[in-house]
Amino acid sequence: MREVTAFCWVPDFARGFVRDIRVRWALEEAGLPYKEHLIDHEEKLAPAYRRLQPFGQVPVYRDGKVSMFESGAIVMKIAEQSEALMPPDEHGRARTLSWAFAAVNSVEPLVSNVIDTELFCADENWAPGYLVAARNSLSVRLECLSVWMQERACLEDRFTAGDLLMTTILRELIGNPVFEPFPDLKAYTDRCSARPAFQRALTAQLTTFDAHVPAV
Amino acid sequence: MREVTAFCWVPDFARGFVRDIRVRWALEEAGLPYKEHLIDHEEKLAPAYRRLQPFGQVPVYRDGKVSMFESGAIVMKIAEQSEALMPPDEHGRARTLSWAFAAVNSVEPLVSNVIDTELFCADENWAPGYLVAARNSLSVRLECLSVWMQERACLEDRFTAGDLLMTTILRELIGNPVFEPFPDLKAYTDRCSARPAFQRALTAQLTTFDAHVPAV
Repeated sequence: MREVTAFCWVPDFARGFVRDIRVRWALEEAGLPYKEHLIDHEEKLAPAYRRLQPFGQVPVYRDGKVSMFESGAIVMKIAEQSEALMPPDEHGRARTLSWAFAAVNSVEPLVSNVIDTELFCADENWAPGYLVAARNSLSVRLECLSVWMQERACLEDRFTAGDLLMTTILRELIGNPVFEPFPDLKAYTDRCSARPAFQRALTAQLTTFDAHVPAV
Repeated sequence: MREVTAFCWVPDFARGFVRDIRVRWALEEAGLPYKEHLIDHEEKLAPAYRRLQPFGQVPVYRDGKVSMFESGAIVMKIAEQSEALMPPDEHGRARTLSWAFAAVNSVEPLVSNVIDTELFCADENWAPGYLVAARNSLSVRLECLSVWMQERACLEDRFTAGDLLMTTILRELIGNPVFEPFPDLKAYTDRCSARPAFQRALTAQLTTFDAHVPAV
């Protein structure tokens, strides 16, 4: 049985955005059942968990044959098992792999620099100046993506694991002023996250958090 | 014939670090010949190039069957063709994929935040305060990696594409004070980058740059 490690509860800002959502979504698209293995924020620091996830993050994925970490890697592993996430031909596989790495290496770091600073460091005296630069770098990258997406519904000619990863990154920008000049990317994000498989994954993550609200 | 797009020349700070080095290294480990396709810093902005690489970066990789971008993706594509970069068994492949994504998604963004700020933004009034925070985040991540590496020569039980990508990231930190508390990671980086295949890749990139120094 496939098992996905997730947090039993997170603060409001992280609800719906913890990275097990990517793996849950991929498994839903592929039609592969899984069970949750829930941990709390103490367990993630323990040496036993670090041997499964060196950086104390979620998710970990185990299926009886492999034990993996890094949501991008797990999504690609699942994609290798389902044409719902990756075309079977060599060209389609190569393009899916390119976009998966583009999402996590060329887009996500710039998104995180803006979002994490706004969330956690807004009161630091360096934050306003830094954010001008970080928002500018992100806008340049989003502009490139917007040019690529002209007249496209997906990153390639059909939905793939690349769109899945890109969507989980871009949806962090919904409502943020830096995203306003890109209604095309907003519409793309909305289209992908309207997929029933994403909605099932989101509901699964939120239902778990709701069931484990800490006592005050 | 495999073709790797690279810049014909870059300024000193980027010599040996432009990301085609990763693909050259992977091809050298796999024993696969390739030719360079050189572009300059005007061509990377042109629409024709953006259709090959949406963000105007290098490398692009073409082999007659696929056209790919993102160095991490290309390295994994090459790894699928050579046991020199990835074990053939399911577990070994899954672990290689995990570390490839860990390198570019969990380590590289924190390295880039420090290195890029030091290189390009040192005189900004927000830089000193921001760098305290960025160096601290990086140190915490490196500490996790150092704990993982205890009594290990590689990230797993043999050299893989994961080590290749991690090495190209960690070597940006050599000589940086933030790397000094981690002599184990420095030694790991030195061991991997002493591999003849890396040295051939490095020489190839530098030789190209030396042959295309712009007229003053």
